Amino acid sequence: MDKKLIGVDLGGTTTKFAILTTSGAIQQRWSIDTNILDEGAHIIPDIVTSINHHLKLYQMVPEQFLGIGMGSPGTVDRQLGTIIGAYNLNWKTLQQAKQEIEAGTGIKFAIDNDANVAALGERWKGAGENDDNVAFVTLGTGVGGGIIADGHLLHGAAGSAGEIGHITVDPKGYLCTCGKHGCLETVASATGVVRVARDMAEEYAGDSELKQTLDDGNEISSKITFDLAKAGDPLAKMVVDRVAQYLGIALGNVANTLNPTFIVIGGGVSAAGVFLLNQVQAYFDDYTFPQVRETTKLKLAELGNEAGVIGAGSLALAFA
Amino acid sequence: MDKKLIGVDLGGTTTKFAILTTSGAIQQRWSIDTNILDEGAHIIPDIVTSINHHLKLYQMVPEQFLGIGMGSPGTVDRQLGTIIGAYNLNWKTLQQAKQEIEAGTGIKFAIDNDANVAALGERWKGAGENDDNVAFVTLGTGVGGGIIADGHLLHGAAGSAGEIGHITVDPKGYLCTCGKHGCLETVASATGVVRVARDMAEEYAGDSELKQTLDDGNEISSKITFDLAKAGDPLAKMVVDRVAQYLGIALGNVANTLNPTFIVIGGGVSAAGVFLLNQVQAYFDDYTFPQVRETTKLKLAELGNEAGVIGAGSLALAFA
Repeated sequence: MDKKLIGVDLGGTTTKFAILTTSGAIQQRWSIDTNILDEGAHIIPDIVTSINHHLKLYQMVPEQFLGIGMGSPGTVDRQLGTIIGAYNLNWKTLQQAKQEIEAGTGIKFAIDNDANVAALGERWKGAGENDDNVAFVTLGTGVGGGIIADGHLLHGAAGSAGEIGHITVDPKGYLCTCGKHGCLETVASATGVVRVARDMAEEYAGDSELKQTLDDGNEISSKITFDLAKAGDPLAKMVVDRVAQYLGIALGNVANTLNPTFIVIGGGVSAAGVFLLNQVQAYFDDYTFPQVRETTKLKLAELGNEAGVIGAGSLALAFA
Repeated sequence: MDKKLIGVDLGGTTTKFAILTTSGAIQQRWSIDTNILDEGAHIIPDIVTSINHHLKLYQMVPEQFLGIGMGSPGTVDRQLGTIIGAYNLNWKTLQQAKQEIEAGTGIKFAIDNDANVAALGERWKGAGENDDNVAFVTLGTGVGGGIIADGHLLHGAAGSAGEIGHITVDPKGYLCTCGKHGCLETVASATGVVRVARDMAEEYAGDSELKQTLDDGNEISSKITFDLAKAGDPLAKMVVDRVAQYLGIALGNVANTLNPTFIVIGGGVSAAGVFLLNQVQAYFDDYTFPQVRETTKLKLAELGNEAGVIGAGSLALAFA
């Protein structure tokens, strides 16, 4: 009988689990709240308990699994199976994820960062069509990314390959949390879109519901901005155009550098869907040279929230 | 006895050859003029004749070789071993390089484009220190590049990976031969540096030997510009600063995307050496996020003209 995979997608609010076949079909799914109390001391034990509980529930044993793969925020050491600096999990010290999960479940464990794992998921079973050359960018609270080139997930010298969110799109741009200026993340994350909207609203003089909302002191979001742009609000349209231009130059240069078959756009901001995609595509075409323009295709992600558990599960294929 | 490799570096003026050990030591070197007459019809036959002649000279036989590797300008089909569109070779039709060279020498043949092959050479025996993650950029008549990531030379969907020269560094910049605007090549190639110098000279009002030379209607070169900058010419210093900034943003974004261990700068313009490197480094530091800044190192190429034959030879290792 074919062995199974377990995929774990560790997030700041929820931890998602899936049992998958080695061809990537999800057989069971569940999730638990991520308990970040006590400096995150419950997180790893809760994962172990939840896996063991569900294996019992499904009458399965550790020997039926190739391994457990997990995607995590923070800085991951893939060899040692440790994590540090995942601030949204409240972890302040090095976490021995591999050691504790292998000891607690009796199943082999592999780990990578959350954006890489989502990239693997979209590449394997989503918009990436299992191609050997796929770049993935996720537009959410931050902007993350992962790159599969020549069939390999890239990590680079220190695990920072695929950090598309920190591509410089405007040398004189906003200060990023990373300390440098003009990162894609500062303008194309959910908060980045709002920042662009606020700044453009200050200089905008015409009629606009977006401007009115801001002038009234109300909160806006990237979703509100995109919805207003779709409805024809002139300022909102300018904001989306600006964001699309930044995405076009960043993803265009990823394409000029790597010529992937697909660049897959996921994350919350990508919920703006084809409306956003078409505008990014127009700038992408401006900023890519002909051979790349003709052979690298922009696509929307297809797996939504499941990209993480599917990609995480695929890490365990390495134990086959 | 260990088998040997033959490396061929096909250029518009000269074709270079080398016989190498499988560990990359050059045992014999020679070169011939590239005869581009008659629509380049002599190029491949001349290569065959030259290889056969030298094997006879060195009393060697085809069985002593793992294979022949060649770097070529133009668009290379690695699987079929063909080349098209190498305008500096006068070729107007598809060239059956692999078929003719294998038939003519009795030795297996592999091919890749010239920039990729130079990248392989610098990675293997030069500044790349045989690391698994090396990006290479060559600043010459044009700007080319090649990327080794996770130990693999990247080609992408259509063989256009590593085209660092077509990274957009200024969306409103100069028109490139590729048809888009603001490619790195338009400002950092030998002719690009001159173009930047001419344009900056028009707006420059102070004393400058570079400006005087241009105003007198004399030709300048990238070398003259760098030499004047080193000597303290104020306009020339501004030109080099501008070029360094463009290189810093392009190479910074290659690093933000791939986090290579080394980015190696080669080609004629890089003859400006440490003077150029230090200025690019300053901008590179501005445009990379901390983890990348600390782990990706800019270096000057070390092999000069030999990068091509060494990297080409390494292609034949695939036949081992």
